[in-house]
Amino acid sequence: MASEVHSLEDILQRNIQGEELKEVQRILYGSPVKTLDLTKEIELLAAENNFEIKGYKVSANNEEERVARIVRVGAIQNQIIIPTDKPVLEQTNSIYERLRVIIETAGQAGVNVLCLQEAWTMPFAFCTREKHPWTQFAESAEDGPSTVFLQKLAKQYNMVIVSPILERDEVHQDTLWNTAVVISNTGAVLGKSRKNHIPRVGDFNESTYYMESDMGHPVFETTFGRIAINICYGRHHPLNWLGYGLNGAEIVFNPSATVGALSEPLWGIEARCAAIANAYYTVAINRIGTEEFPNEFTSGNGKPAHKDFGHFYGSSYVAAPNGSRTPGLSRVRDGLLITEIDLNLCRQVKDTWGFQMTQRLPVYKDLITKATQQDFKRQIVKE
Amino acid sequence: MASEVHSLEDILQRNIQGEELKEVQRILYGSPVKTLDLTKEIELLAAENNFEIKGYKVSANNEEERVARIVRVGAIQNQIIIPTDKPVLEQTNSIYERLRVIIETAGQAGVNVLCLQEAWTMPFAFCTREKHPWTQFAESAEDGPSTVFLQKLAKQYNMVIVSPILERDEVHQDTLWNTAVVISNTGAVLGKSRKNHIPRVGDFNESTYYMESDMGHPVFETTFGRIAINICYGRHHPLNWLGYGLNGAEIVFNPSATVGALSEPLWGIEARCAAIANAYYTVAINRIGTEEFPNEFTSGNGKPAHKDFGHFYGSSYVAAPNGSRTPGLSRVRDGLLITEIDLNLCRQVKDTWGFQMTQRLPVYKDLITKATQQDFKRQIVKE
Repeated sequence: MASEVHSLEDILQRNIQGEELKEVQRILYGSPVKTLDLTKEIELLAAENNFEIKGYKVSANNEEERVARIVRVGAIQNQIIIPTDKPVLEQTNSIYERLRVIIETAGQAGVNVLCLQEAWTMPFAFCTREKHPWTQFAESAEDGPSTVFLQKLAKQYNMVIVSPILERDEVHQDTLWNTAVVISNTGAVLGKSRKNHIPRVGDFNESTYYMESDMGHPVFETTFGRIAINICYGRHHPLNWLGYGLNGAEIVFNPSATVGALSEPLWGIEARCAAIANAYYTVAINRIGTEEFPNEFTSGNGKPAHKDFGHFYGSSYVAAPNGSRTPGLSRVRDGLLITEIDLNLCRQVKDTWGFQMTQRLPVYKDLITKATQQDFKRQIVKE
Repeated sequence: MASEVHSLEDILQRNIQGEELKEVQRILYGSPVKTLDLTKEIELLAAENNFEIKGYKVSANNEEERVARIVRVGAIQNQIIIPTDKPVLEQTNSIYERLRVIIETAGQAGVNVLCLQEAWTMPFAFCTREKHPWTQFAESAEDGPSTVFLQKLAKQYNMVIVSPILERDEVHQDTLWNTAVVISNTGAVLGKSRKNHIPRVGDFNESTYYMESDMGHPVFETTFGRIAINICYGRHHPLNWLGYGLNGAEIVFNPSATVGALSEPLWGIEARCAAIANAYYTVAINRIGTEEFPNEFTSGNGKPAHKDFGHFYGSSYVAAPNGSRTPGLSRVRDGLLITEIDLNLCRQVKDTWGFQMTQRLPVYKDLITKATQQDFKRQIVKE
């Protein structure tokens, strides 16, 4: 494509008017989310630092026995800053400096829980299959430099920060993992969660670097609700989403790195379907830009070797348990999406739609158990 | 709403041009499906009989060891014909006569597997909670009048027909079920499948009439591929879709009856997400029109008693395993959607994306087993 379009929603809004636009938005986005008013100062910070900022609001019914549980959720999408042939430390530090201002803006805008994109400290170098120098971006989840960097900001702004990194697990024989570190608003490391499903598709050669998580589907009880992290490719797995739901998640982040040609038509579908099916909020986050690498690599598609990953299309969004969703952030710009949600909506939607009550888990326990057997006989009816 | 819009795609096409329209369609609908050329005779039949007809084509790569498995899939959406206070037999017969011409058109257009909408022989009367007269629409799956009616057409046109009806199971103490009868292209009844998940939401008081299926997730091996039927509310349950996938389905029909205010923003999401996650084709079918009943009923939403169900919005569509989908049929007109698909695409997408290989069923067998226990402890991490 010659030039990348800014966003789907922009095209719809520029071209369609009045009642027709309302119908299109209702069918495509559900019951309308409101705009969240951000202060002039916040908008100025975004403008001065050249990132998009958008604010939305999802509300719930008032209840007599529970107060509204209002939480501001933040999602950051960004490009890498300097070329991938620069020293590893310089690359990471340049991202720290870029993100510091966006994170501070989130803090000042009252964000309670913030999530960064997948492997945010580095270019998404797994396309190369080279171990050197890329594994040098790996670090300890508990006390690596990015955790230390974010702990200060988390404490300063009383904000939970979810930090998806490439983890080096020194205690367990130096293994690598694709990990999300959950930093509490107190500044303490609350825990970590690892990627449950690893892709082997297109340039996503991640299985060369790390294995599937053996930590299950942890849910983190924070001051601002129960959160979980379904990292990237896990969004294609309804069972993975279900796992976080069974463990009580109210917000599930999906920090991702995915490119247009491969996945864009799926992007609006999967995280949103998960929000509906599991009656929780989902926050889909994708990186921005085209990353070039020093050495050429092939993509297993018969095409010539090349040095870039294709366009990461951003379009981060929030989906609500009732099926409505926010517009996406830009396809081409760094951005901060702030969504004020009421966690009470989760249980309200469960009561309304009844998907959990009618779920029939015992039936599926039996079926999946059978399907894992080597001598599994499928239930096929023949004439 | 004063007047119902014809379709989302019409609005997009009328208002957006050129490259922008292409981008919108790519993001919303995936890699473009081609138009299937229908003969002048077929189009004339549709025009003369006042129903919409649309044809699309989804192709796959050529393989050396398998020939393409091209199948024409048909989906019919329709209104009821005469008022709901007429005698039951008259109502059903009027629908038979209306559907005969649409089914014959499908047969003449070379459809191989055809599916009708949920409870197609009757108005969707479950909103009323009245047993009389509506249970009189129930009939034997094996040799009831609608099965006999369709067997002739199936044989005549060498066409598998999926017939979702209200079943009366006389052998098992006269119980009622929400059932899809699968009639082979030979005219024989190949078998039946029942609704696995029953709604209790809005006017969908179906749990007053019938229970959840105890037949599992049967897949029917037909001359034209392995098919299954996920009836209506089952589309909200990813585990239900998974069940048909585990049993080897290549096409899963989702005959439905659902109204705009409740579910329309979810309509494009769920059946399509299932096609992606399970690497099979899904065919989402919804009825048309607003059905009025003789006696007023309430909807459990604080609003006054009323006599109509709201607008069934049609919009039937086919989603492919690669995430692309056809445009929807009209929101307001009877219609026949013909989609020519290549079943080989299912396995090709499994090989490309690897969702089945990376599915980790044993993890979920364990998790779901735990979650069904009374003393289930959720995996929650606290500070």
